[in-house]
Amino acid sequence: MKIEMESIGTIHTEFKEIEGMPIQPTGAKGIKGTVEIKDKYVDGLKDLKDFSHIHLIYLLHKVDGYKLEVKPFMDNTNHGVFATRSPKRPNRIGMSVVKLNKVEGNKVFIENVDILDGTPLLDIKPYVPQLYEDTIDELKIGWFETKHQKAKSQKSDNRFK
Amino acid sequence: MKIEMESIGTIHTEFKEIEGMPIQPTGAKGIKGTVEIKDKYVDGLKDLKDFSHIHLIYLLHKVDGYKLEVKPFMDNTNHGVFATRSPKRPNRIGMSVVKLNKVEGNKVFIENVDILDGTPLLDIKPYVPQLYEDTIDELKIGWFETKHQKAKSQKSDNRFK
Repeated sequence: MKIEMESIGTIHTEFKEIEGMPIQPTGAKGIKGTVEIKDKYVDGLKDLKDFSHIHLIYLLHKVDGYKLEVKPFMDNTNHGVFATRSPKRPNRIGMSVVKLNKVEGNKVFIENVDILDGTPLLDIKPYVPQLYEDTIDELKIGWFETKHQKAKSQKSDNRFK
Repeated sequence: MKIEMESIGTIHTEFKEIEGMPIQPTGAKGIKGTVEIKDKYVDGLKDLKDFSHIHLIYLLHKVDGYKLEVKPFMDNTNHGVFATRSPKRPNRIGMSVVKLNKVEGNKVFIENVDILDGTPLLDIKPYVPQLYEDTIDELKIGWFETKHQKAKSQKSDNRFK
Protein backbone atom coordinates (compact mmCIF):
# COMPACT_ATOMS: atom_id res chain seq x y z
CA MET A 1 0.00 0.00 0.00
CA LYS A 2 1.57 3.24 -1.18
CA ILE A 3 0.67 6.33 0.82
CA GLU A 4 0.86 9.75 -0.83
CA MET A 5 1.31 12.95 1.08
CA GLU A 6 1.82 16.57 0.16
CA SER A 7 3.49 19.25 2.25
CA ILE A 8 1.12 21.77 3.82
CA GLY A 9 3.88 24.37 4.00
CA THR A 10 7.57 24.98 4.58
CA ILE A 11 9.63 25.53 7.74
CA HIS A 12 12.17 28.35 7.55
CA THR A 13 15.06 28.43 10.02
CA GLU A 14 18.65 29.64 10.30
CA PHE A 15 20.01 26.12 9.78
CA LYS A 16 21.06 25.87 6.15
CA GLU A 17 22.94 22.60 6.59
CA ILE A 18 22.72 19.61 8.89
CA GLU A 19 26.18 19.90 10.38
CA GLY A 20 26.25 22.01 13.53
CA MET A 21 22.50 21.99 14.14
CA PRO A 22 21.03 21.39 17.59
CA ILE A 23 19.63 17.88 17.72
CA GLN A 24 16.68 18.43 20.10
CA PRO A 25 14.46 21.34 21.18
CA THR A 26 16.28 21.44 24.55
CA GLY A 27 19.44 22.36 22.62
CA ALA A 28 17.64 24.97 20.51
CA LYS A 29 16.27 27.28 23.20
CA GLY A 30 15.54 30.76 21.89
CA ILE A 31 16.20 29.85 18.26
CA LYS A 32 13.39 31.22 16.13
CA GLY A 33 11.84 30.09 12.89
CA THR A 34 8.82 30.62 10.69
CA VAL A 35 6.35 28.20 9.20
CA GLU A 36 4.82 29.31 5.92
CA ILE A 37 1.54 27.55 5.28
CA LYS A 38 0.23 27.08 1.75
CA ASP A 39 -2.69 29.44 1.02
CA LYS A 40 -5.17 26.63 0.57
CA TYR A 41 -4.60 25.42 4.15
CA VAL A 42 -4.55 28.79 5.97
CA ASP A 43 -8.12 28.46 7.30
CA GLY A 44 -6.92 25.42 9.27
CA LEU A 45 -4.88 27.77 11.51
CA LYS A 46 -7.98 29.32 13.17
CA ASP A 47 -7.54 29.43 16.97
CA LEU A 48 -4.03 27.99 16.83
CA LYS A 49 -2.74 31.28 18.33
CA ASP A 50 -4.34 30.33 21.68
CA PHE A 51 -1.79 27.52 22.17
CA SER A 52 1.67 28.17 23.60
CA HIS A 53 3.24 25.03 22.12
CA ILE A 54 2.60 22.88 19.06
CA HIS A 55 3.81 19.65 17.55
CA LEU A 56 5.28 19.99 14.08
CA ILE A 57 5.35 16.83 11.99
CA TYR A 58 7.60 17.13 8.98
CA LEU A 59 9.61 15.34 6.31
CA LEU A 60 13.35 14.92 6.95
CA HIS A 61 13.86 15.78 3.30
CA LYS A 62 17.67 15.91 3.23
CA VAL A 63 18.07 12.35 4.46
CA ASP A 64 18.65 9.51 2.00
CA GLY A 65 17.47 6.02 2.91
CA TYR A 66 17.40 4.51 6.39
CA LYS A 67 19.41 2.37 8.77
CA LEU A 68 17.70 -0.05 11.13
CA GLU A 69 20.47 0.19 13.71
CA VAL A 70 22.04 3.54 14.36
CA LYS A 71 24.54 5.13 16.69
CA PRO A 72 22.72 8.30 17.78
CA PHE A 73 24.47 11.63 18.41
CA MET A 74 24.10 11.16 22.15
CA ASP A 75 25.45 7.63 22.54
CA ASN A 76 28.31 5.38 21.47
CA THR A 77 26.38 2.15 20.99
CA ASN A 78 23.91 1.03 18.37
CA HIS A 79 20.17 1.12 18.99
CA GLY A 80 17.21 0.18 16.84
CA VAL A 81 16.13 3.21 14.83
CA PHE A 82 12.66 3.18 16.44
CA ALA A 83 14.32 3.57 19.85
CA THR A 84 16.00 6.77 18.63
CA ARG A 85 15.16 10.07 16.95
CA SER A 86 17.67 9.38 14.17
CA PRO A 87 16.58 11.02 10.91
CA LYS A 88 17.72 8.02 8.83
CA ARG A 89 14.44 6.19 9.41
CA PRO A 90 11.75 4.59 7.26
CA ASN A 91 9.34 7.29 6.00
CA ARG A 92 11.72 10.04 7.23
CA ILE A 93 9.11 11.58 9.57
CA GLY A 94 10.40 14.15 12.06
CA MET A 95 8.51 15.59 15.01
CA SER A 96 9.30 18.52 17.30
CA VAL A 97 7.54 20.34 20.11
CA VAL A 98 8.11 24.07 19.50
CA LYS A 99 6.93 27.25 21.16
CA LEU A 100 4.32 29.22 19.23
CA ASN A 101 4.94 32.97 19.33
CA LYS A 102 2.27 34.24 16.97
CA VAL A 103 0.21 33.54 13.89
CA GLU A 104 -0.08 36.18 11.15
CA GLY A 105 -1.92 35.28 7.98
CA ASN A 106 -0.18 32.23 6.53
CA LYS A 107 2.85 32.58 8.83
CA VAL A 108 3.37 30.78 12.12
CA PHE A 109 6.24 32.19 14.20
CA ILE A 110 7.97 29.55 16.31
CA GLU A 111 10.81 29.19 18.83
CA ASN A 112 13.13 26.43 20.13
CA VAL A 113 13.55 25.10 16.63
CA ASP A 114 15.82 22.13 15.86
CA ILE A 115 14.74 21.87 12.22
CA LEU A 116 16.58 22.37 8.91
CA ASP A 117 15.66 25.33 6.68
CA GLY A 118 13.32 24.39 3.82
CA THR A 119 11.81 21.39 5.60
CA PRO A 120 8.42 20.35 4.18
CA LEU A 121 5.72 20.45 6.85
CA LEU A 122 3.21 17.58 6.95
CA ASP A 123 1.01 18.47 9.94
CA ILE A 124 0.56 20.73 12.95
CA LYS A 125 -1.05 19.38 16.11
CA PRO A 126 -1.72 21.25 19.33
CA TYR A 127 0.54 20.22 22.23
CA VAL A 128 -1.89 19.08 24.95
CA PRO A 129 -0.25 16.69 27.42
CA GLN A 130 -3.48 16.67 29.43
CA LEU A 131 -4.85 14.23 26.83
CA TYR A 132 -2.44 11.45 27.81
CA GLU A 133 -0.30 12.34 30.81
CA ASP A 134 -2.64 10.70 33.33
CA THR A 135 -1.97 7.40 31.54
CA ILE A 136 1.71 7.67 32.48
CA ASP A 137 2.42 6.37 35.95
CA GLU A 138 6.05 5.39 35.74
CA LEU A 139 8.22 6.63 32.91
CA LYS A 140 11.22 4.71 31.58
CA ILE A 141 13.29 6.31 28.82
CA GLY A 142 15.69 3.48 27.97
CA TRP A 143 19.19 4.47 26.87
CA PHE A 144 18.29 8.18 27.15
CA GLU A 145 18.25 7.79 30.96
CA THR A 146 21.95 8.56 31.35
CA LYS A 147 22.36 10.47 28.09
CA HIS A 148 19.54 12.97 27.68
CA GLN A 149 21.45 15.83 29.32
CA LYS A 150 23.75 15.78 26.31
CA ALA A 151 20.89 17.01 24.13
CA LYS A 152 21.32 20.50 25.58
CA SER A 153 24.72 20.99 23.99
CA GLN A 154 25.32 18.22 21.43
CA LYS A 155 25.27 19.40 17.82
CA SER A 156 24.61 17.44 14.67
CA ASP A 157 27.39 16.16 12.44
CA ASN A 158 27.31 14.45 9.05
CA ARG A 159 26.72 10.89 10.16
CA PHE A 160 23.12 10.81 8.93
CA LYS A 161 23.69 12.53 5.60
CA MET B 1 6.25 17.79 -4.38
CA LYS B 2 4.65 14.42 -3.89
CA ILE B 3 5.83 12.47 -0.86
CA GLU B 4 5.56 8.69 -0.85
CA MET B 5 5.39 6.61 2.28
CA GLU B 6 4.86 2.96 3.06
CA SER B 7 3.50 1.48 6.26
CA ILE B 8 6.08 -0.18 8.53
CA GLY B 9 3.41 -2.37 10.09
CA THR B 10 -0.19 -2.58 11.27
CA ILE B 11 -1.88 -1.67 14.55
CA HIS B 12 -4.36 -4.25 15.86
CA THR B 13 -6.98 -3.20 18.41
CA GLU B 14 -10.48 -4.10 19.57
CA PHE B 15 -11.97 -1.11 17.73
CA LYS B 16 -13.41 -2.41 14.49
CA GLU B 17 -15.32 0.77 13.68
CA ILE B 18 -14.91 4.45 14.42
CA GLU B 19 -18.22 4.90 16.23
CA GLY B 20 -17.91 4.37 19.97
CA MET B 21 -14.11 4.55 20.13
CA PRO B 22 -12.29 6.52 22.81
CA ILE B 23 -10.97 9.73 21.28
CA GLN B 24 -7.77 10.16 23.31
CA PRO B 25 -5.38 7.95 25.31
CA THR B 26 -6.83 9.35 28.57
CA GLY B 27 -10.16 7.75 27.57
CA ALA B 28 -8.52 4.45 26.61
CA LYS B 29 -6.81 3.51 29.87
CA GLY B 30 -6.14 -0.22 30.11
CA ILE B 31 -7.20 -0.93 26.54
CA LYS B 32 -4.61 -3.14 24.92
CA GLY B 33 -3.45 -3.57 21.36
CA THR B 34 -0.65 -5.04 19.30
CA VAL B 35 1.59 -3.56 16.66
CA GLU B 36 2.79 -5.99 14.03
CA ILE B 37 5.96 -4.76 12.35
CA LYS B 38 6.88 -5.89 8.84
CA ASP B 39 9.73 -8.40 8.90
CA LYS B 40 12.11 -6.12 7.03
CA TYR B 41 11.89 -3.48 9.77
CA VAL B 42 12.11 -5.73 12.86
CA ASP B 43 15.79 -4.94 13.52
CA GLY B 44 14.73 -1.34 14.12
CA LEU B 45 13.00 -2.45 17.35
CA LYS B 46 16.28 -3.21 19.17
CA ASP B 47 16.27 -1.66 22.69
CA LEU B 48 12.71 -0.35 22.32
CA LYS B 49 11.68 -2.64 25.20
CA ASP B 50 13.59 -0.38 27.63
CA PHE B 51 11.06 2.41 27.12
CA SER B 52 7.79 2.54 29.05
CA HIS B 53 5.98 4.78 26.55
CA ILE B 54 6.25 5.39 22.81
CA HIS B 55 4.80 7.70 20.19
CA LEU B 56 2.99 5.94 17.39
CA ILE B 57 2.61 7.90 14.17
CA TYR B 58 0.06 6.39 11.84
CA LEU B 59 -2.25 6.91 8.88
CA LEU B 60 -5.91 7.65 9.69
CA HIS B 61 -6.79 5.32 6.84
CA LYS B 62 -10.57 5.27 7.20
CA VAL B 63 -10.93 9.02 6.84
CA ASP B 64 -11.83 10.53 3.48
CA GLY B 65 -10.62 14.02 2.67
CA TYR B 66 -10.24 16.89 5.12
CA LYS B 67 -12.04 19.91 6.54
CA LEU B 68 -10.13 23.07 7.45
CA GLU B 69 -12.64 24.01 10.14
CA VAL B 70 -14.05 21.29 12.34
CA LYS B 71 -16.25 20.91 15.37
CA PRO B 72 -14.27 18.48 17.54
CA PHE B 73 -15.87 15.78 19.70
CA MET B 74 -15.11 17.81 22.83
CA ASP B 75 -16.48 21.19 21.80
CA ASN B 76 -19.48 22.84 20.15
CA THR B 77 -17.70 25.49 18.16
CA ASN B 78 -15.55 25.33 15.06
CA HIS B 79 -11.76 25.41 15.27
CA GLY B 80 -9.06 25.28 12.62
CA VAL B 81 -8.13 21.66 12.00
CA PHE B 82 -4.50 22.30 13.06
CA ALA B 83 -5.79 23.45 16.47
CA THR B 84 -7.51 20.06 16.92
CA ARG B 85 -6.76 16.34 16.74
CA SER B 86 -9.57 15.85 14.22
CA PRO B 87 -8.79 12.94 11.89
CA LYS B 88 -10.22 14.78 8.87
CA ARG B 89 -6.93 16.59 8.25
CA PRO B 90 -4.52 17.07 5.35
CA ASN B 91 -2.20 14.03 5.13
CA ARG B 92 -4.37 12.15 7.67
CA ILE B 93 -1.52 11.68 10.14
CA GLY B 94 -2.48 10.46 13.60
CA MET B 95 -0.25 10.38 16.67
CA SER B 96 -0.71 8.74 20.07
CA VAL B 97 1.37 8.25 23.20
CA VAL B 98 0.83 4.64 24.31
CA LYS B 99 2.26 2.46 27.03
CA LEU B 100 4.70 -0.22 25.88
CA ASN B 101 4.17 -3.54 27.64
CA LYS B 102 6.61 -5.77 25.80
CA VAL B 103 8.32 -6.52 22.51
CA GLU B 104 8.35 -10.08 21.15
CA GLY B 105 9.85 -10.68 17.72
CA ASN B 106 7.91 -8.49 15.30
CA LYS B 107 5.13 -7.74 17.83
CA VAL B 108 4.93 -4.69 20.09
CA PHE B 109 2.33 -5.01 22.84
CA ILE B 110 0.77 -1.67 23.78
CA GLU B 111 -1.80 -0.23 26.20
CA ASN B 112 -4.02 2.89 26.42
CA VAL B 113 -4.85 2.60 22.76
CA ASP B 114 -7.27 5.00 21.02
CA ILE B 115 -6.57 3.66 17.53
CA LEU B 116 -8.72 1.82 14.97
CA ASP B 117 -7.98 -1.82 14.14
CA GLY B 118 -6.00 -2.25 10.93
CA THR B 119 -4.37 1.18 11.08
CA PRO B 120 -1.18 1.43 8.99
CA LEU B 121 1.79 2.43 11.15
CA LEU B 122 4.24 5.00 9.75
CA ASP B 123 6.74 5.42 12.57
CA ILE B 124 7.57 4.67 16.20
CA LYS B 125 9.48 7.19 18.27
CA PRO B 126 10.53 6.87 21.90
CA TYR B 127 8.56 9.08 24.31
CA VAL B 128 11.23 11.21 26.00
CA PRO B 129 9.78 14.47 27.38
CA GLN B 130 13.21 15.29 28.83
CA LEU B 131 14.25 16.32 25.31
CA TYR B 132 11.90 19.33 25.23
CA GLU B 133 10.11 19.88 28.53
CA ASP B 134 12.66 22.38 29.83
CA THR B 135 11.71 24.61 26.88
CA ILE B 136 8.17 24.85 28.23
CA ASP B 137 7.80 27.54 30.86
CA GLU B 138 4.14 28.41 30.65
CA LEU B 139 1.71 26.13 28.87
CA LYS B 140 -1.48 27.36 27.18
CA ILE B 141 -3.76 24.79 25.60
CA GLY B 142 -6.31 27.04 23.87
CA TRP B 143 -9.88 25.73 23.67
CA PHE B 144 -8.87 22.49 25.42
CA GLU B 145 -8.43 24.50 28.66
CA THR B 146 -12.05 24.04 29.72
CA LYS B 147 -12.77 20.91 27.67
CA HIS B 148 -9.94 18.42 28.08
CA GLN B 149 -11.60 16.61 30.98
CA LYS B 150 -14.20 15.41 28.48
CA ALA B 151 -11.56 13.28 26.78
CA LYS B 152 -11.76 10.78 29.63
CA SER B 153 -15.30 9.72 28.77
CA GLN B 154 -16.22 11.14 25.36
CA LYS B 155 -16.55 8.51 22.62
CA SER B 156 -16.28 8.93 18.89
CA ASP B 157 -19.31 9.20 16.63
CA ASN B 158 -19.60 9.28 12.86
CA ARG B 159 -18.96 12.95 12.25
CA PHE B 160 -15.53 12.40 10.73
CA LYS B 161 -16.38 9.43 8.57
